Amino acid sequence: MSETLLPPRTLQARAAELDAADPLADRRDLFALDDGVVYLDGNSLGALPRHVPARMAHVIGHEWGELRIRSWDESGWWTAPERIGDRVAPLLGAAPGQVVVGDSTSVNVFKALVGAVRLAGDDGRDEIVVDATTFPTDGYIAESAARMTGRRLVPVAPGDVAGAVGPRTAAVLVNHVDYRTGRLHDLPGITAAAHAAGAVAVWDLCHSAGALPVDLDAHGVDLAVGCTYKYLNGGPGSPAYLYVARRHQERFDSPLPGWNSHADPFAMTPGYAAADGARRGRVGTPDILSMLALEASLDVWDGVPVPQVRAKSLALTDFFLECVRAYVPEGRLTRLTPAAHAERGSQVALSCDDAPAVMEQLVARGVVGDLRRPDVLRFGFTPLYVGFADTERAARVLAEVCAGR
Amino acid sequence: MSETLLPPRTLQARAAELDAADPLADRRDLFALDDGVVYLDGNSLGALPRHVPARMAHVIGHEWGELRIRSWDESGWWTAPERIGDRVAPLLGAAPGQVVVGDSTSVNVFKALVGAVRLAGDDGRDEIVVDATTFPTDGYIAESAARMTGRRLVPVAPGDVAGAVGPRTAAVLVNHVDYRTGRLHDLPGITAAAHAAGAVAVWDLCHSAGALPVDLDAHGVDLAVGCTYKYLNGGPGSPAYLYVARRHQERFDSPLPGWNSHADPFAMTPGYAAADGARRGRVGTPDILSMLALEASLDVWDGVPVPQVRAKSLALTDFFLECVRAYVPEGRLTRLTPAAHAERGSQVALSCDDAPAVMEQLVARGVVGDLRRPDVLRFGFTPLYVGFADTERAARVLAEVCAGR
Repeated sequence: MSETLLPPRTLQARAAELDAADPLADRRDLFALDDGVVYLDGNSLGALPRHVPARMAHVIGHEWGELRIRSWDESGWWTAPERIGDRVAPLLGAAPGQVVVGDSTSVNVFKALVGAVRLAGDDGRDEIVVDATTFPTDGYIAESAARMTGRRLVPVAPGDVAGAVGPRTAAVLVNHVDYRTGRLHDLPGITAAAHAAGAVAVWDLCHSAGALPVDLDAHGVDLAVGCTYKYLNGGPGSPAYLYVARRHQERFDSPLPGWNSHADPFAMTPGYAAADGARRGRVGTPDILSMLALEASLDVWDGVPVPQVRAKSLALTDFFLECVRAYVPEGRLTRLTPAAHAERGSQVALSCDDAPAVMEQLVARGVVGDLRRPDVLRFGFTPLYVGFADTERAARVLAEVCAGR
Repeated sequence: MSETLLPPRTLQARAAELDAADPLADRRDLFALDDGVVYLDGNSLGALPRHVPARMAHVIGHEWGELRIRSWDESGWWTAPERIGDRVAPLLGAAPGQVVVGDSTSVNVFKALVGAVRLAGDDGRDEIVVDATTFPTDGYIAESAARMTGRRLVPVAPGDVAGAVGPRTAAVLVNHVDYRTGRLHDLPGITAAAHAAGAVAVWDLCHSAGALPVDLDAHGVDLAVGCTYKYLNGGPGSPAYLYVARRHQERFDSPLPGWNSHADPFAMTPGYAAADGARRGRVGTPDILSMLALEASLDVWDGVPVPQVRAKSLALTDFFLECVRAYVPEGRLTRLTPAAHAERGSQVALSCDDAPAVMEQLVARGVVGDLRRPDVLRFGFTPLYVGFADTERAARVLAEVCAGR
């Protein structure tokens, strides 16, 4: 992979200049990251915002411990799923009232995909086209959604979706960024192709939201889901979200119509009547502790323009690739992440036969990425708290490990 | 409701004697309940165990904040759903390896009921019998499960289930204790009737587990679900649980086969292969903060025999009814909860036309029950932290409010 071979000092100097000019540099202090580790796994579990422990101590000690049941009203627990949905919405390019937080991504994929099939209607649309390279849970859940709605699953590579959709396609499910390679798929183009075929487009934003502009409303996406514990830093297993475009909400027909999605939940009537708006995507009682940790975590986004995040993300991954080229002998690592900006998310994936041993050594030396079996090294670049000096150090340690030093 | 009319001092003296003889009396100090409130809403949201805030500060500050991604292994996050399931299991009368924690009760009702229909097989079993008096979400979700499996929903009163099951019955879903009236249904009898008809029995334990013996294994229950934020004190919206009897696990076919239920989740293969055992009931990434708060909360059960809990629960509800009879003029309130122990859970439900105003006044005077619209006053008796003096005080304040004093 070598093209240029600059000495480390030069790249270190460059890193210092880039950090000095970084308009997001001050955000890092909002996170608990003072342990000297270069944390490049924020695409798996985001770092802890420093203010969250105090907020959660209040939630647990006061809201649960003292107010107890009164907190459902007085502390705003009951409305948290929609309120936090509206905090997430700007990061997705969604106007208010279309995003609700709750359940896991997998459960939301089920809601969204069954909902999409029902929106598409019954007139011969018997296929669900699914990203064959998807994060596996989407494929497993899509298989179940297909089975339970009497549809057939059609797995294709994301680049082939446009050619695979047609009059038999009910819905299309694609990951915006591939979890393994970091490849960014063409959301506007695939959505338009799905629509041209009369199908409903569902996007999984787990590896894109919080790292790059998604612009759901602008691109006419129908439904979307995503997690909040990666780039959104909501904490381990924090609740996922479901986006249902406003134009579809009245016809959105959830396969999990729990009492929280009822128009009048506390009437506790035997007959189901769906709530209006985003709340229709709720199911059961929300996991308040995980949810309010997410709500607090979202404060780190206040005043951050998503395009600025994207610009830094691309600068970080470009710089990482440049440092790797400079430090690691050509042929030692294979780059899986596309070079073109238009095809790159916010991670760099490199492969080598000894990837497990390499990642173990990296972690031992304070550079935390992660391994995707059998041979992929993943490095996630979270623009709110990863800097250019971190990036140079990561590449330098990677080179040392690769060289067996 | 008057039968005896003892003066308050006598009932207060009785309460003191009962508290002095209560083998569970010392458990109350484990909870944050020093605010002078009589908390009779533990059947809606259990009180905070005092040690939970410190445990959660460690989870958030150290496990998330410092170890970050490493905690999935090093802090045991990944195995939490099964580990905590095994902590819940003794409260359900379940041997280890059959209970998994995660998702909401509603989502687990869906898994259990679709799973039950699939276990029942396709030979003409086209009906799902459901408790018509059930907590509404069970009915809504059952309707969806019926629709998505091509079955017909047959709502009947729990007392009529035995007569309603037959060769067309695939599955039966009943609440063990009615959320509104506090009526305890005949789990052994209804389960046996379902089995005699060749159907699969699914129980919702939300209002029974933690208050009385359930004995799932002994009674041959097939599947069960329940929440953990009521009598189990797991915190607001803490994750629910799913029990799949060991004999059914190999054939349990979840409608939500998320990656956490895969036999080798980190292989991330496109083909789904279900894990063995309780883990097959998992779906997506677990909500770790809510889940670990539950795990910590379960410590309050260490060394507590469930029959002792049941004995105190019945003594508390008996004593409350006795105090209400003594203090409240006959005819002012109607008792909805059965008098017979065999038909009573751990709450007392009383109705009156002005129930909303009565409950508002009770809460204002430090007696916290809850209202079920339009006319039901619910009082939950949680044996680990409600005492007899609390109970007498609650009845006395209720009498004052009812008298307009």
